[in-house]
Amino acid sequence: MNPTITAFKRSPDAGRGLARDTRVRWALEEVQQPYDVRYLTFTELKEPSHRALNPFGQIPTFEVGELIMFETGAIILYIGSHHAGLLPGETNARARAISWMFAALNSVEPAIIDLANARIEEREQPWFAQRMPLIEKRVRARLDVLANHLGSAMWLDGEFSAGDLLMVSVIQRLKVTNLLDNYPTLLAYIARAEARPAFQRAFAAQLAAFNASANA
Amino acid sequence: MNPTITAFKRSPDAGRGLARDTRVRWALEEVQQPYDVRYLTFTELKEPSHRALNPFGQIPTFEVGELIMFETGAIILYIGSHHAGLLPGETNARARAISWMFAALNSVEPAIIDLANARIEEREQPWFAQRMPLIEKRVRARLDVLANHLGSAMWLDGEFSAGDLLMVSVIQRLKVTNLLDNYPTLLAYIARAEARPAFQRAFAAQLAAFNASANA
Repeated sequence: MNPTITAFKRSPDAGRGLARDTRVRWALEEVQQPYDVRYLTFTELKEPSHRALNPFGQIPTFEVGELIMFETGAIILYIGSHHAGLLPGETNARARAISWMFAALNSVEPAIIDLANARIEEREQPWFAQRMPLIEKRVRARLDVLANHLGSAMWLDGEFSAGDLLMVSVIQRLKVTNLLDNYPTLLAYIARAEARPAFQRAFAAQLAAFNASANA
Repeated sequence: MNPTITAFKRSPDAGRGLARDTRVRWALEEVQQPYDVRYLTFTELKEPSHRALNPFGQIPTFEVGELIMFETGAIILYIGSHHAGLLPGETNARARAISWMFAALNSVEPAIIDLANARIEEREQPWFAQRMPLIEKRVRARLDVLANHLGSAMWLDGEFSAGDLLMVSVIQRLKVTNLLDNYPTLLAYIARAEARPAFQRAFAAQLAAFNASANA
């Protein structure tokens, strides 16, 4: 039986692949696991029937058999733990890949989401221009660490892993800013990940879903 | 062989238990695994020898045998996967507990860290008072979800798990604000967790370390 994920009926990012279902689609494509998608309107997301799956009323969720999961990171860890292709087989290498998964979501993403929130929710506020350098400084501090650590390596720790999948997904959001301009190796890292056939299929699938909703 | 964790030589929270080593100490106490601690000054945290363990130059790290890990969430997941007491044995219940671990760190903590950052880094800024309601609104949205989900239950999903450990650790930071005043069930949830002998031992250990450094 295929797992079922949820996604936005009409993604607010207009099909740019930044909604979190893309991360789960990508993981499922990496392990070559077919999946079904249930699309939800913004209204449906906040209804009790969806909150029973995800108390935060967000996408994605992941259902397989009796199991219902939420949180992208947890879902991808589950997929990586039940299929080959996303986490190393060797115990210590696997633990390090999981360190990078959490690093992406807890040490890097918050600064980037703060930037995104400010650009959406605080753009009209009188402090927007003054506060932006502070936010950008926090983002650059993370990018400095990543660029330093990556050096000339292909991936964060040996082979491509779910740690890279999440880290790339997190920093992709900066492509609409100029913050990556001084980090050519990070731009190349993102491009390398986006060239993976699994990412290409995931991106195409979410874009097709957006286009279908936009034309409906 | 005991694992070794790292912690602040002198915690900036003055022993209130908010530094992230407390979370790992707590997890180790729950599974009754003795551990050693290596204490680091702020200068030592940023040195190459520590960045080789944690590229972000932060505490805690976790070393056992050949394995070196960073990221509190990953470390606690590792501890929970290798010892009984932090994650349910049943596969689906375990997956749901892991959903709550990620929820604590990725869906709840960023809004709370944003509040903490603003109180530290933006207090002197002209926009501080105006921006605060926006930040608090984001925090309350998470607390509403948690309080709703928890209802009259003891823990987030069945027995106490690493999901509760992380969620309580994340919302504990709000005890210095008045944001929890309208959430008596969340205050009780925190108190219930803090009453656990494992938390008590972890808290006492970090406080003793702070007091030793303060008296040095």
